[in-house]
Amino acid sequence: MTTIAFIGLGNMGGPMAANLIKADHSVTGFDLSDASKAAAQEAGVAIAADARAAVKGASVVVTMLPAGKHVRAVWADLVAAAGKGTLFIDSSTIDVESARAVHKLAAEAGMASIDAPVSGGTGGAKGATLTFMCGGEASAFDRAKPILEKMGKRIVHCGGAGAGQAAKICNNMILGISMIAVSEGFSLAEKLGLSHQALFDVASTSSGQCWSLTTYCPVPGPVPTSPANNGYKPGFAAELMLKDMKLAIEAASASGASVPLGAAAAQLYQLFNASGHAGDDFSGIINMIRGA
Amino acid sequence: MTTIAFIGLGNMGGPMAANLIKADHSVTGFDLSDASKAAAQEAGVAIAADARAAVKGASVVVTMLPAGKHVRAVWADLVAAAGKGTLFIDSSTIDVESARAVHKLAAEAGMASIDAPVSGGTGGAKGATLTFMCGGEASAFDRAKPILEKMGKRIVHCGGAGAGQAAKICNNMILGISMIAVSEGFSLAEKLGLSHQALFDVASTSSGQCWSLTTYCPVPGPVPTSPANNGYKPGFAAELMLKDMKLAIEAASASGASVPLGAAAAQLYQLFNASGHAGDDFSGIINMIRGA
Amino acid sequence: MTTIAFIGLGNMGGPMAANLIKADHSVTGFDLSDASKAAAQEAGVAIAADARAAVKGASVVVTMLPAGKHVRAVWADLVAAAGKGTLFIDSSTIDVESARAVHKLAAEAGMASIDAPVSGGTGGAKGATLTFMCGGEASAFDRAKPILEKMGKRIVHCGGAGAGQAAKICNNMILGISMIAVSEGFSLAEKLGLSHQALFDVASTSSGQCWSLTTYCPVPGPVPTSPANNGYKPGFAAELMLKDMKLAIEAASASGASVPLGAAAAQLYQLFNASGHAGDDFSGIINMIRGA
Amino acid sequence: MTTIAFIGLGNMGGPMAANLIKADHSVTGFDLSDASKAAAQEAGVAIAADARAAVKGASVVVTMLPAGKHVRAVWADLVAAAGKGTLFIDSSTIDVESARAVHKLAAEAGMASIDAPVSGGTGGAKGATLTFMCGGEASAFDRAKPILEKMGKRIVHCGGAGAGQAAKICNNMILGISMIAVSEGFSLAEKLGLSHQALFDVASTSSGQCWSLTTYCPVPGPVPTSPANNGYKPGFAAELMLKDMKLAIEAASASGASVPLGAAAAQLYQLFNASGHAGDDFSGIINMIRGA
Repeated sequence: MTTIAFIGLGNMGGPMAANLIKADHSVTGFDLSDASKAAAQEAGVAIAADARAAVKGASVVVTMLPAGKHVRAVWADLVAAAGKGTLFIDSSTIDVESARAVHKLAAEAGMASIDAPVSGGTGGAKGATLTFMCGGEASAFDRAKPILEKMGKRIVHCGGAGAGQAAKICNNMILGISMIAVSEGFSLAEKLGLSHQALFDVASTSSGQCWSLTTYCPVPGPVPTSPANNGYKPGFAAELMLKDMKLAIEAASASGASVPLGAAAAQLYQLFNASGHAGDDFSGIINMIRGA
Repeated sequence: MTTIAFIGLGNMGGPMAANLIKADHSVTGFDLSDASKAAAQEAGVAIAADARAAVKGASVVVTMLPAGKHVRAVWADLVAAAGKGTLFIDSSTIDVESARAVHKLAAEAGMASIDAPVSGGTGGAKGATLTFMCGGEASAFDRAKPILEKMGKRIVHCGGAGAGQAAKICNNMILGISMIAVSEGFSLAEKLGLSHQALFDVASTSSGQCWSLTTYCPVPGPVPTSPANNGYKPGFAAELMLKDMKLAIEAASASGASVPLGAAAAQLYQLFNASGHAGDDFSGIINMIRGA
Repeated sequence: MTTIAFIGLGNMGGPMAANLIKADHSVTGFDLSDASKAAAQEAGVAIAADARAAVKGASVVVTMLPAGKHVRAVWADLVAAAGKGTLFIDSSTIDVESARAVHKLAAEAGMASIDAPVSGGTGGAKGATLTFMCGGEASAFDRAKPILEKMGKRIVHCGGAGAGQAAKICNNMILGISMIAVSEGFSLAEKLGLSHQALFDVASTSSGQCWSLTTYCPVPGPVPTSPANNGYKPGFAAELMLKDMKLAIEAASASGASVPLGAAAAQLYQLFNASGHAGDDFSGIINMIRGA
Repeated sequence: MTTIAFIGLGNMGGPMAANLIKADHSVTGFDLSDASKAAAQEAGVAIAADARAAVKGASVVVTMLPAGKHVRAVWADLVAAAGKGTLFIDSSTIDVESARAVHKLAAEAGMASIDAPVSGGTGGAKGATLTFMCGGEASAFDRAKPILEKMGKRIVHCGGAGAGQAAKICNNMILGISMIAVSEGFSLAEKLGLSHQALFDVASTSSGQCWSLTTYCPVPGPVPTSPANNGYKPGFAAELMLKDMKLAIEAASASGASVPLGAAAAQLYQLFNASGHAGDDFSGIINMIRGA
């Protein structure tokens, strides 16, 4: 049993903390939202008065927060309150620069740390089937792994500080582009009188195969579990895809990488969000591509 | 044993005709190039004086030609020379409009016909492992299938006239986009200090997975058989990818489909070709993305 | 007084023919539409039974038709019917390849010819203020010039066969891109709290100055005569802009030119058209850029 | 005579400070570079030991620095050192968010402030012909105007805090796109056999007209003073254009504006920079578009 502080108990953090409880860890948590705190408490999480109070006596601190600025502020506060040698794990999806900055902050305060963003969505958070992409020292990763295994089923060490965030945004940028590629393919097929199923049958076993086609198909039919069969209810909301695309574009801009299709895709998601579809599943962008 | 005429005996057509010979069909062929004719003759193909002579007595005619205008010209000539009810198979990759036009031409002359473009490249042509994407009437497809099975291992009926060409260009447009997406992903990863193998390990088992990554990886290492390990020797030359992207863009333009990433990708392949890399494998575009 | 045949008497051709009548030329015309014929007749144009009949006795033939295929068909018909040495002028906006093909056709039949597409829209056609961009031999241009001067106020000789069409599509591609550039500028300004007038005042006298901003401003206010002040009623309809962008993209594709922003702009106009705005002025694309 | 502190005496700031001296102002300056300090001293600027020392006794402080982070740091330092009511003018080109942050900082310390980025380059700085785009309160603008008039010839009040920066990046985004549009136009014209001069003659008097064409033409010939006639020696370096495009993209991303062509253009400048041309004039991008 490990004593764990969990900061950020929302749609993702709440179920993740609950899975730590199920694995017989002792978890004290904090969130700014009363509803989130109440739900976590019901799942067995002890609720602290504030974040600083939550980390008292903890040997592991997990943060799950909206953006880099929140992680920077919370870690700055908590590395001063936690005991020497505490392991800090940030599972938020944030910019690489902030991830590296908080690693540095933790190291200077004598803490171990990893960045460990996830993929798998709220379903993966509830079912403990998340993938964790981790960056940091091997020794910190080794300490974190048994904890993360209670919340996910694939724990990958991607490299040094920030490598987890880097892996996530590179992956998600490829995803964001592929989904539009597949949407354009289906849209063109429709105009040419080619059925969805025919294109699916060809491309799913050929060089056009990709996860966006074979697991998350943006037209109803070929993949019965994809959001297209459910009115494009997310799944993975377009506003979250846009957030990840922006992180990729910013990282490319700061590091001097060229990402022409990534940038074009980001703009298309921006248009899709701005036209009132921020809450739809990101695969719903096929409707915009069609001109609907 | 079927008597088959084979027009176009180049890098693709030559080995395909040879596989029909191996399957004990009688094949008479024609090509404008002496070298192609000589190679085909060595493989057992009887060489006719011209295309018209080749179709005399044939019950099946296969064409494998560079572009729509060639197919239009050759079919116009041959439907007049062939016996009533001959099955015409066009395995060229051409524009959908031309494909439909020659179907019409054949039907008016009392011939059966399918469009049957392939994927799998020269390796697939030699090894008889091509995929055939077929468009046309079911009865014509049923007649063609046993012939095509001697040259390929996957024979898909995609729909009516032109559906094979439609499926191929939709698939290849998705492919052309995904390869650049993966290239941008690796290029960004490099700038962020994330190793090729780490990104590969994450994305190949996650939502960024695609054929361009897991079968044809544009960086050396993760997939030992990909052209990246062999100095970007094709494989599938950039000029052929550009040709297919242009077919997709033209079909989209003519039919009123929007293909923003397809169009952007086509322009990037155009730039890559224009900068002296038309003969490289198309995955070599990663070097242009890097600014090399 | 010159005897002129005018084929294509629609929104553009009708008023152009009427201006030739006003200049005391003798004009016999033809159109497939009864309404167009009736309107032209009222303006003094003699109506022939068909196009062939119209060219009898004419020393100049002017065509104003929708697309390359129409011009190819009509010229093929008319060069056989016209007297040796007749001057053929095509004022349609068509693809460069077709323009060159009909020049060749005319030359082989012993005719003089120029391509002479226009800019200036229906207003320019009525007011005889069109710009003519001309391609062809200097001698043909010299013969055409006094005729064209009755329909326009700027007659430019751009070069040999097809040069007029080339100049028009290059100009209009720049225009199509600039209009979106200006629209993005205003859209970003709005989000940043910068007024339309302030951006106009800066950019109109600085390095962002362009015709799309200073003559045809896509937001109401700064340029009172622009369609933005009139509910985006054309002006120059989005579907016509899309047609011209497609001509540019096709010419680039056929000739091996890279036009990344041209292609991106064409896709945006395609999206705009497909979303129900084909009949709006092309500057209305600012609303799509805004997400409205 | 006004006592002015000038922080940042580089290629732009140095000549600007010199022009204030010529106008009989008393200027004390500071820079981190010894060479810059020496050059400024020669022009009559008194050199202080550090930035804080420079503002002692000044009623106006001008900053000309590379990026938002520098301006934030320097203003934070100087508002504490300057006398109450000092007017702070920032002529750096920085992100809108930082511009607004330093306005707030200044206001809280009881200072007046304007953001006043410039256009016109080093030539404009030397010749006192810069354009100043200003944001801030009218009273601050009124105080700044007579000072700015000694360094430029056009002083525009664009609106409240940050409006100067907003105007500059909107203008420069339009510029960055137009230059590529014109480059694509010339590149396509070349492939179609249309001369540079012919396209220039048509487009410069037609709807394709823009500053990038008529003042800063990217091919040699039509505009003798453009960098194209001088081996693409800047002028305005590609790396500075890329910097401005990035500021626009970041502002769009932060504010939720869609800038599809702006983003595409930024990526093209990124590719151009990465391929070894960061120091060339930005109009040299025509060579990349051509595939050279």
